[in-house]
Amino acid sequence: MRIIEQPAELQAWALERRAAGRRIGLVPTMGNLHEGHLSLVRLAKAGADETVVSVFVNPLQFGPNEDYAAYPRTFAEDCAKCGAEGVDVVFHPAPDAMYAPGASTTVRESALTGVLCGASRPGHFEGVCTVVCKLFHLALPHVAVFGEKDAQQLRVIRRMVRDLDFPLEIVPGPIVREADGLAMSSRNRFIPAGMRGQALCLRRALDAAEAAFAAGERRVEALRGLMAETVRRVAPDGEVDYISLNDDETLEPLDGEISRPALAALAVRVGGPRLIDNARLVP
Amino acid sequence: MRIIEQPAELQAWALERRAAGRRIGLVPTMGNLHEGHLSLVRLAKAGADETVVSVFVNPLQFGPNEDYAAYPRTFAEDCAKCGAEGVDVVFHPAPDAMYAPGASTTVRESALTGVLCGASRPGHFEGVCTVVCKLFHLALPHVAVFGEKDAQQLRVIRRMVRDLDFPLEIVPGPIVREADGLAMSSRNRFIPAGMRGQALCLRRALDAAEAAFAAGERRVEALRGLMAETVRRVAPDGEVDYISLNDDETLEPLDGEISRPALAALAVRVGGPRLIDNARLVP
Repeated sequence: MRIIEQPAELQAWALERRAAGRRIGLVPTMGNLHEGHLSLVRLAKAGADETVVSVFVNPLQFGPNEDYAAYPRTFAEDCAKCGAEGVDVVFHPAPDAMYAPGASTTVRESALTGVLCGASRPGHFEGVCTVVCKLFHLALPHVAVFGEKDAQQLRVIRRMVRDLDFPLEIVPGPIVREADGLAMSSRNRFIPAGMRGQALCLRRALDAAEAAFAAGERRVEALRGLMAETVRRVAPDGEVDYISLNDDETLEPLDGEISRPALAALAVRVGGPRLIDNARLVP
Repeated sequence: MRIIEQPAELQAWALERRAAGRRIGLVPTMGNLHEGHLSLVRLAKAGADETVVSVFVNPLQFGPNEDYAAYPRTFAEDCAKCGAEGVDVVFHPAPDAMYAPGASTTVRESALTGVLCGASRPGHFEGVCTVVCKLFHLALPHVAVFGEKDAQQLRVIRRMVRDLDFPLEIVPGPIVREADGLAMSSRNRFIPAGMRGQALCLRRALDAAEAAFAAGERRVEALRGLMAETVRRVAPDGEVDYISLNDDETLEPLDGEISRPALAALAVRVGGPRLIDNARLVP
């Protein structure tokens, strides 16, 4: 397994591999790899001859009061896990190498990013789109894999790929969960031990919405009320950022009754970390 | 010579050509090709095995009061000229084919675009960056050629390529002029016959600045004054948009004395069309 730190070296490698007729798969990550990431790596490997995992905590997608400095960095362990999965290249650039002094070009998606996490994290998705655009140009993947836990990110990236005609395919990876249902996340380690049970509020709220939806409930307000009530019950100390039902493709907030595929999504702060989870409701 | 109208068809062609080991050269144009464009085509051909000329009047880069509808469209003549130059592909998409309904992703450069043409044409360079990004993803060029007449555009595109790590080289093409010095432009046809002489004010102003600079003049105000005076003398009916001396790389407006390479640039409306021209002043 090759570890590459310089963007130009990754691009030269990718051009050479492409010229040799090899298909490249990319899994962009911020490191601190868990089973969720590794499931994405397996999807990339299934669709490509060469697999690149990028490990880069991207400063551009963190707000001034967010957890950029505290974000867990465990590069040696990440490399061991990538090695065990048969990854071909780990790309691990320094922030200085990724962003030239005075870098002034960004990629912005404007229709899907004003709601949900985008509303709470101004500039976040511009940072995501910009770094993903750069990673696409450096790794030159035929296929890139993104997790469904970051539901809005997946949709924004898909939209970017469509709108800017990137010559690649986006493959979504299903959410991977702990045995009790908590969606795997690098931020779970910051949940205080005594509040671990409360962190289940997100999945339980989605369970409640899915059960009611399966039983025929289509009213957005009723479903959202059920989710909010579940969060309050399971996580009395949780701070809700949003509990929302949105059009699954356009992410427009829904009202009235659900007649097209919907995304039920929520973000709740549980003892420090801000956790997110989601489920699709398809009539 | 192949004429391609569908973006997906161009991308499939480019991927196939790349897989065959061929180098691709791209010349993005808005059509109405003149000798200036054809000089860019020759540069592309010199650096590539396959040359693509895109002919697309990009609605995204025109402001609401600009000349999108009136911009000259002469596709049959353009094809004849491309054929004579040995172009391999002319890409000629419909606006609907280039922009999906609800397209919402744009590329923005923010450091170089607030001055000169960017100041007069808000949104113009976001439209340029977005369409050029798309053309790069569709034609997948190894080399792309841009004319030096659009001095700011050339610098913005170079910055975009650097910042977003596009795997390609930008080649600048020198300004091509009529015998009397007027820079070739598709908009020259809109200069009223009686004002053709006044259109020379741009080149004459640059001549004056270059001559003074060569004679040792380094004061920005003196050089700009000389240019303004020349424009007034040669084009009493001209409407000046800007006459400016800027840092050649950062495009920051200069004051004091010129100690690094500078860009002398001006935009003047002469009987309707807005004309631009520029020259580099290198100490």
